[in-house]
Parts: sequence; structure tokens; C-alpha cells
Amino acid sequence: MLGRVYPSHFTFSPTSFPASMSLLVIGSVAFDAIETPFGKTDKIIGGAATFVSLAASYSTKQVKLVAVVGDDFPQSDILTLQEHGIDTEGLQIKQGEKSFFWSGKYNTDLNSRETLVTELNVLADFDPIIPDAYQDCKYLMLGNLTPQIQRLVIQRLVNRPKLIVMDTMNFWMDIALDELLQTIQMVDVLSINDEEARQLSGEYSLVKAARKILALGPKFLIIKKGEHGALLFHKKQIFFCPALPLEDVFDPTGAGDTFAGGFIGHIAATDDISFENLKRAVIHGSAMASFCVEKFGTERLLNLTQEEIQEREKQFGDLVRVEEVLAQ
Amino acid sequence: MLGRVYPSHFTFSPTSFPASMSLLVIGSVAFDAIETPFGKTDKIIGGAATFVSLAASYSTKQVKLVAVVGDDFPQSDILTLQEHGIDTEGLQIKQGEKSFFWSGKYNTDLNSRETLVTELNVLADFDPIIPDAYQDCKYLMLGNLTPQIQRLVIQRLVNRPKLIVMDTMNFWMDIALDELLQTIQMVDVLSINDEEARQLSGEYSLVKAARKILALGPKFLIIKKGEHGALLFHKKQIFFCPALPLEDVFDPTGAGDTFAGGFIGHIAATDDISFENLKRAVIHGSAMASFCVEKFGTERLLNLTQEEIQEREKQFGDLVRVEEVLAQ
Repeated sequence: MLGRVYPSHFTFSPTSFPASMSLLVIGSVAFDAIETPFGKTDKIIGGAATFVSLAASYSTKQVKLVAVVGDDFPQSDILTLQEHGIDTEGLQIKQGEKSFFWSGKYNTDLNSRETLVTELNVLADFDPIIPDAYQDCKYLMLGNLTPQIQRLVIQRLVNRPKLIVMDTMNFWMDIALDELLQTIQMVDVLSINDEEARQLSGEYSLVKAARKILALGPKFLIIKKGEHGALLFHKKQIFFCPALPLEDVFDPTGAGDTFAGGFIGHIAATDDISFENLKRAVIHGSAMASFCVEKFGTERLLNLTQEEIQEREKQFGDLVRVEEVLAQ
Repeated sequence: MLGRVYPSHFTFSPTSFPASMSLLVIGSVAFDAIETPFGKTDKIIGGAATFVSLAASYSTKQVKLVAVVGDDFPQSDILTLQEHGIDTEGLQIKQGEKSFFWSGKYNTDLNSRETLVTELNVLADFDPIIPDAYQDCKYLMLGNLTPQIQRLVIQRLVNRPKLIVMDTMNFWMDIALDELLQTIQMVDVLSINDEEARQLSGEYSLVKAARKILALGPKFLIIKKGEHGALLFHKKQIFFCPALPLEDVFDPTGAGDTFAGGFIGHIAATDDISFENLKRAVIHGSAMASFCVEKFGTERLLNLTQEEIQEREKQFGDLVRVEEVLAQ
């Protein structure tokens, strides 16, 4: 096929990957209250690990969650995760304590937001206990958390996973840079946004920024640009995946975590860490994120079909495809 | 070749296009004084038509310029245009008057700028006279100017060009919306940036914005996103071309005009207004713009080779290419 960007039969049906390897996901499982120009919510289920796990569950049924909630967290929401094949043995429920709560308000352009409330609650003294049944995990996704806890998880695994992906944010660059750099040094893939890449490197050019950040340890760097797509850097290679121009962008909350979940989910499902396969993982992650923003919170991620996902992935190819010109 | 986005032999050597049709370019030819985080200039040659003509001159040697300058405009700069094969018969030189002058300062992120000085001078009462020798032009590029003058040029052409491309900016949306809408109605391709598309349509979603703007008359809409690439809309089709991640971005001045010049230059050279060819024109325009920002003003556009341009175009394909997966 001419002008093919990636195959249209590109599929992620979990059953079609006998290779599927177990994926350990750590991060926050929390309550969010969100306000966008299009509406607002009361407390709804959120948190990095929630979005990551749900997104990954469409690629592999071997997602193992490590997180902590209070006894205010609804059993029904835990059931929802289990119904998606997510192992919640590592989800600690602290009696008499409250779950992590974040409340934010997005500006009209949706590219910037204001944090209204952050209540750490159970996250304040989170001790990430890894159940023995999780020790065989081959892939590790470190969702946004304190870099100390992220590092602790790596140290508590008897065998180093085949690939460790870390998501973080500017907040840790501001208050815990040394801890952050120690953890970054231990991972294979770092996922941050363009502003954070510029802050972490002190470089405006994302090419220069990527070079400096890759020198900190990671073999791969993902720079997320929200509605402008995502870049994947490896050595001197660069891959760019656009974001799909959408009819409706409703709520960006969790889009980055959903991207990360789709990304690592595809890798765990295919058990292939080549640069070419990481490119496909970026496309799959972008497709998953494009669903996430269409509704509030996790709503759009609860009932996706493989057909919907495949159709979305195909649109990424169509968006950049140019047919071959006949030789002059 | 697998995963080919567009052909690597993709070339724009003017001589390789016997089809090459004449291109009429109208816009400002002016002095700019620019300040970026990386340095500042005194008065240097600038103006929309200057960037458009120079960029187009790498695709076709049939560029015919209509513009106005004062007697303060250096003969040497006019010679530079002529040396690039640009016909300056339509460049009026007003004795005793001064050329249009713009001075601006870019903020650290380079995505926003502040206008320090705008002296219309000769542009204040510009009467765009079309030399008879220009009447045969098959393509028309309306560089950013008052919509009244842009419309006047269309009206003064005996035969309507095969394709009319119009570039404009938010300034005219603010002070001359009705005039602007009248002119937009008469063109085939409108080129604006994402902010302007949102302002003109009142829609946040670029998909919805494009639908509304295409309903105003143009068959094609280009939405420029600066360092984030460009979108081409036609009916229900969308094409996205990324911007190349660059080592050094030095001065964005004229990047949009250079993009437009490369875009229309490729179309005039190939004499093909199909959607597929317009996609290639967007890639070529993006490649030309990627050179423009590497130095101050027009400097980087003065001595490009076809090899450099081809190499840059190839990089756009490499950036989004994903190899085919073997069927499972």
C-alpha cells in the first residue's frame, strides 16, 4: 500500500497477544472534582493509576495495581477496575482515612489549569507494598507520584522489569529535583510534557532538551504536547505522533495518564521494546487519550470496543498520509 | 517502500517542472527591526511579499511581485529579489516617501510577540497596479495586507486565476471584519493560525472552526500552528503536517509567509490543485519555513540549495513514519 504510515489491521485485542506479559502499575487512585468551560463534576474517580490501568486493560488483562485509598472509596469503583481485568490485590484500603483528593479548574483554552484543592490524605504516608504475586511483572509503569515512592517500587522488585516507564510532573522538579533525578536515572522511558522538558533541561529547543534529558539515564523520552501531539526520542531518532483534531474536547484530566497506560499496555501486550514498536505504542496511547478527553474523568474509558480503538488508530495514519507521486 | 509517507525523491527543482505557471504575489515589502531572546537586528528587509516571493522562487522562476516601497529602500535588496528570478516590474518605488516599517519583540517562548512600532508609510495609500505582463498569471498569492487591497487585486485581474491563496491575520478580524469576510468569500485557500481560526469561527474545536470557515467560501483552509505544525482542511478531509523539531529556532518572523510562499510555489510549479498535491505543498511550505526560523529575517532563505530543501522534506516523512508490522 502506498503512503501507508502504519498498518490498518493494527490491532490490540488482548486475546490476539499470547505474548502478553504482566504489567505492574503504581500511582494514585483518587477522587477528582473537575471544572471545565463545558461543565463541572462532583467527586468522581480519578488518579494517575486509575487512568493508566483502565487504558492498559484494553491491551492486556495482566494489569496489577499498587495504590492506596481510604475507606471512603466506593467498592463499586474497585469492582469497575476488577471488571476490566485489573488485579487489585495491591490496592491498600486504609480504614478511618480518606482518599487522595484533587480539584482543578481549566481555563478556556483547556491548555492550562488551576489547582483548587489538593488533599494528600492516605498518600501522605503511602508505603507501596508489592504482593508476592506481582513479583513476576515484566513491565513497570510508574504513574505520577513522589519520586521517592517511585524509586522504592523499583527497589522492592526482586528482578528488574524488562522496561520501566516513568511519568512525572513539574511539581517534583520544583520541590524534589534531586530525588527526581535519582529516580529518572533508574528508568528506561521518561514521559513528561513540553513545558516540563524545557524546565528540566533549561533548553528551549526540544531537540536540545531531549539530548540533555536522555543523558540523565533514560533510553527513551516521550514529550507530550497535549492537543499538539507527542514526540518520542531515542538516541538520534525522533518520532512524532499528532493528536487527532477532535470535534469535542470536554475534559483533559487524565489524558496524559491514559496515553501512558495505552503506551505501556501495548508494549506489555506485544512484549517488544524495539523503537519501531514503541512508535506504535505512542500511536495507541494517543488514540486512547483521544477518547479520554471526550467525556469527564474515566467515563469514556469504561466501555470502549476494540473496533472503536482500531478505527481511531487508523485515523492517525490517514491524518499524515500522502500518496506517492509518480516519478517525473 | 513500507511506511512511506511521501516519496523521498520528492523534488522542487524549478527546471524539473516544465508545467511551471506564473505566480502573482502581492503583499508588503518592508523594513523589520526584530528582537528575540537570542539577539536583535537594526532595520532589515522583511514584509510578507518578500518572504513569499523568496520562498516561491525555489520552486518556480515565474514569480511576479506587486508591492510598494519608498525611496529609502536599498537598490541592493531589489537586486537580491531579481537575482532569485523574481519579476519586480510591479514593485512601485515612491519618491520622497518611506517604506513600511515594523518592529517587534518576541517573548521567551517565541510563540507570542509584542509589536513595538508600525509605520504604514507608503502602505497607507497603496494602489496595487498590475502590469499588463502580469495579467497571464495562473496563480495568485495574497500576502497579508488590508482585505480591501487584496480584493482589489482579484478585481483587477482580467481572468480569474486558477487558484487564489489568501493569508491574513487577527488584526483585520478586529478592525475590518466585514471587508475581510467579503475577500475571504472570493478565495480558494485561506491561511491563518489556530488562534485566528478560533477567533474567526468562535469555535474552540479546530474541526468545528474549519467547518464554519469553509462555509464562508474557501475550498481549502490551512491552519498554521507554528512550532506545532499545520493542518489542511478540505470538505471532510484533514491533513496534518508536523513542524520539524529544530536544534535552533532563532527568529519566527516571516515563517508563516515563507510557508505560504513554499506552498503556492509548489502548486504553481506543478500546476496541480488536487488535495493530494496540496498536501505535498504543505510539506514543502513547512520545510521552507523550517529554514526561515533558523536565522534573522530572510537571511536563511537567500542561499538554499535544492539538495538542502529535499533533505529537509525527507525529514518530515521520517518524523511520522512507522514500519509495517508483519501480520500476526
